[in-house]
Amino acid sequence: MPQPKPKPAAPPAEVPVPKAVVSRLSLYLRELQHLVRDGHQRTSSSQLGRLLGFSDAQVRKDLAYFGHFGHPGIGYRCDDLIKAVRKILGTDRDWPVALVGTGNLGHALLGYKGFSHQGFRIVAAFDVDPARVGEAIEGVQVYHLDDLATHAIQQKIKLGMIAVPASAAQSVADRLVAAGIEGIVNFAPVTITLPDTVRQVGVDLAIELEQLSFSVVNRSSANGAEAGE
Amino acid sequence: MPQPKPKPAAPPAEVPVPKAVVSRLSLYLRELQHLVRDGHQRTSSSQLGRLLGFSDAQVRKDLAYFGHFGHPGIGYRCDDLIKAVRKILGTDRDWPVALVGTGNLGHALLGYKGFSHQGFRIVAAFDVDPARVGEAIEGVQVYHLDDLATHAIQQKIKLGMIAVPASAAQSVADRLVAAGIEGIVNFAPVTITLPDTVRQVGVDLAIELEQLSFSVVNRSSANGAEAGE
Repeated sequence: MPQPKPKPAAPPAEVPVPKAVVSRLSLYLRELQHLVRDGHQRTSSSQLGRLLGFSDAQVRKDLAYFGHFGHPGIGYRCDDLIKAVRKILGTDRDWPVALVGTGNLGHALLGYKGFSHQGFRIVAAFDVDPARVGEAIEGVQVYHLDDLATHAIQQKIKLGMIAVPASAAQSVADRLVAAGIEGIVNFAPVTITLPDTVRQVGVDLAIELEQLSFSVVNRSSANGAEAGE
Repeated sequence: MPQPKPKPAAPPAEVPVPKAVVSRLSLYLRELQHLVRDGHQRTSSSQLGRLLGFSDAQVRKDLAYFGHFGHPGIGYRCDDLIKAVRKILGTDRDWPVALVGTGNLGHALLGYKGFSHQGFRIVAAFDVDPARVGEAIEGVQVYHLDDLATHAIQQKIKLGMIAVPASAAQSVADRLVAAGIEGIVNFAPVTITLPDTVRQVGVDLAIELEQLSFSVVNRSSANGAEAGE
């Protein structure tokens, strides 16, 4: 966050926020959205906690990183809290996203309904396969990877998703960086190296299974894997 | 975290291992596998740390939860450490996996090479769409969801992946539980409720993007998102 002079009553947002807290924000947001969809207008830290398997103290503590959102004796207004959490997560705006790779995974990502609900819109897909370039998948045009920078600038794309084979992931990442992309979700099962100025989140789908097998094997001693963690 | 009773002289494996440590184990495993593939026989905590952007102290501390693996002055033998980490993660055995849902995401999961490399084999896929039942996708037979329990028992399936629309996820989860599945990876963007005896990992792909947008928006103060975290 750009260093604002700490005002006397500044919210605790200046404290570096643990990654686990940020990832729980997404879970709170999801539950709040479900509550609203189901007709609820208000909720409480204990209801949110119960839905997710956290304590109400955990919920309050997590949200306290970012300010004061509840009303004593009333709880939270779902709509207000959704708005606040989206603002914190940066999803109060629209994020045009570039997808590189239109194989099975690329297709799945293009068809994934969960993105646009949260403000992420894949606006352009890229591939090097001549058979795919020029196609439209789920309404999204597939361009040649060589045209990445042009489209990224034209469409103000700041986020990219890599859905290419592991062997091509680093070179695609380099191209995304050269095209001015500021954040990358990497689905290829390989570690990519990026300049410090570019953020990345890696998604190695086998890791989820490994985490699961760990908790199944260590079931008797483990405390259980919480949803989405 | 639920209050674990600290035992006096318990071996390190008895200590509840923080989830973040377990997820880093997967990252260490991946780097070790790459090192071996590239012809390296030995590595060190500083090399592993450098490859992943962690300190060498972090690497040593994480591994120390599970025992002593290095040799002073030599470091780690990659093969030995791979074997040890796989044993800890429970991937020293073969895990037959059931996939429910053969839409775009299901197809992508069936084609994902990263699973079998780590010991996870999707041995049966399930759907309710008569057009899909009876098909084989990437060499995997698609059965009707009604036959889940039969195949789960026959093929000793303990892990399941849910790749169905959000609205169907809970009922599919219930069926997986009834079929004796012990761990579930849920790709549907919805929270599912399971008995305490069944482990789950949720994969909401939009969460990755939200975490990314958070770190892009908060770039100046954040420490950067580590790969795979």
